[in-house]
Amino acid sequence: MGDVTVTKSPDGVWCLCRLVRERLKAEVEEMKSQFSGFRPGLVVLQVGDRDDSNLYISSKLKAAAEIGIDAKHLRLPNTTTQDEVLQSILSVNQNLSVHGLIVQLPLDSVSSIDTELITNAVCPEKDVDGLSCMNAGKLSRGDLSDCFIPCTPNGCMELIRQTGVSVAGKHAVVIGRSKIVGAPMHDLLLWNHATVTTCHSKTLDLPEQVGRADVLVVGAGRAEMVRGEWLKEGAVVIDCGINHIPDETKLSGKRVVGDVHYASANQRAGFITPVPGGVGPMTVAMLMESALRVTLCSLTGGRRHGNSSGVVNRK
Amino acid sequence: MGDVTVTKSPDGVWCLCRLVRERLKAEVEEMKSQFSGFRPGLVVLQVGDRDDSNLYISSKLKAAAEIGIDAKHLRLPNTTTQDEVLQSILSVNQNLSVHGLIVQLPLDSVSSIDTELITNAVCPEKDVDGLSCMNAGKLSRGDLSDCFIPCTPNGCMELIRQTGVSVAGKHAVVIGRSKIVGAPMHDLLLWNHATVTTCHSKTLDLPEQVGRADVLVVGAGRAEMVRGEWLKEGAVVIDCGINHIPDETKLSGKRVVGDVHYASANQRAGFITPVPGGVGPMTVAMLMESALRVTLCSLTGGRRHGNSSGVVNRK
Repeated sequence: MGDVTVTKSPDGVWCLCRLVRERLKAEVEEMKSQFSGFRPGLVVLQVGDRDDSNLYISSKLKAAAEIGIDAKHLRLPNTTTQDEVLQSILSVNQNLSVHGLIVQLPLDSVSSIDTELITNAVCPEKDVDGLSCMNAGKLSRGDLSDCFIPCTPNGCMELIRQTGVSVAGKHAVVIGRSKIVGAPMHDLLLWNHATVTTCHSKTLDLPEQVGRADVLVVGAGRAEMVRGEWLKEGAVVIDCGINHIPDETKLSGKRVVGDVHYASANQRAGFITPVPGGVGPMTVAMLMESALRVTLCSLTGGRRHGNSSGVVNRK
Repeated sequence: MGDVTVTKSPDGVWCLCRLVRERLKAEVEEMKSQFSGFRPGLVVLQVGDRDDSNLYISSKLKAAAEIGIDAKHLRLPNTTTQDEVLQSILSVNQNLSVHGLIVQLPLDSVSSIDTELITNAVCPEKDVDGLSCMNAGKLSRGDLSDCFIPCTPNGCMELIRQTGVSVAGKHAVVIGRSKIVGAPMHDLLLWNHATVTTCHSKTLDLPEQVGRADVLVVGAGRAEMVRGEWLKEGAVVIDCGINHIPDETKLSGKRVVGDVHYASANQRAGFITPVPGGVGPMTVAMLMESALRVTLCSLTGGRRHGNSSGVVNRK
């Protein structure tokens, strides 16, 4: 594991995100000149008004504007019913000027809404978040060249790749099995040929499992649960956690930390992503990349491959 | 792991399969009396004439007949084109008297046929083999109560369950990541709350990984590759391999062995399935169970849960 080329500093991740965005911006420019004024279209659908969702959506819209993607925020009130959400999705599915559709989760409605039903209503060709069953099925069975990859694990893979560490044959450990982070992360690592262990709340010997990881991705949702002393020396550590903990030194009375105890982990890891400023910005960058891929695909009639984490057909 | 209750002898597995079949037979009888003469309908579609496929299909038809399922063998010649196979599937999809459709793999045709396209053409409601993307997506993301589970891993879970060992919190190791065995086996173990490691051809330290397994499922396709001395004492070992190796003492000049070296593994394992006579018969039994579930579902308009490996809503 001596081949880590990206520095451990947060600046490294920011630089990487900026590079991805600049590349995407150039691609949009080229697309527009080649197809006379054509512009990728993205819709972010929100139900309700959660503070955290507003923040995430704002990042997505900002990144889209910077790159040249025409992103629209479709906000439905928290009184919206399931049928009304479905109608909105159907309408976006049929809108030819929209290439990608993101449903911001969680859905914040006073009505009872089946999230599964909603994420599966997005037509697979516009499902840039990769959360539909169809996309999950393809990813989990290794058809990476023909599916959308959820943006957070896609960003994690990009960060791992940029460390210079090849995961093939390495032992990767994923903590968490959520639909958005853990489960697709397992798939991506597996089909990039790592030996993968998935740990979760029922795992009895977490420190031992973590200690065997050459690559560790944590999406557990528990503040600073992974301690530095658990890590293998030189491991690549990717922290997907976003947790608010009390901090009297801050004006807000709290601060954001990851699922990994950064200070101690930073002593042993070969590479570690900070929280905030690590996986978050890369997730947004990957979302933009997916939006661009699907647009290119609609222009050229090709398959959806080219998604940067694809094992096969990687651009 | 001292709670193994099923004996290690092959007879134990046979007895278990017989019990499952007898239970299913009784359920069919009840169904017929309750719904005046109604009978579950199953179609096994074969392209070509491979010897191994003929053997597997024959087992399925025999089991179906024994239980009271109306199973039909639809055999297409090896000159069949992809479009013709799709037409046949469409026709079965629309036939209301058929509740389950199995496409026997591999497809043996002189034409070029996209297997993915074919398995995904089976409508999800009749996909008792659980090989469509939609089913794989649900299984891989833990929606076990609303999907069909591929029959081999489903049979493996039933065998594991019958040992009396609860996999929750245990360390399970799966060797292989195929769509039919390894990948869905990982999902089933994970959503039954095991900590799961998937190993494959790129895994560098297979003996060490195997040595940590409380439960080991092998679907690697390599004759006797797992040696007894690799195993943890008392491990549950499920062998999905079917390999033909030369044997001059046999009339045929060959014999069938699994992916595990049985003689040495039997010294250390708490439970081990033999090959032949282990996973194979249980796979067929689970296929019949799936066929029965889908029929019941069509009669009652319910969901597909009740599949015996479901974590949730297990009958």
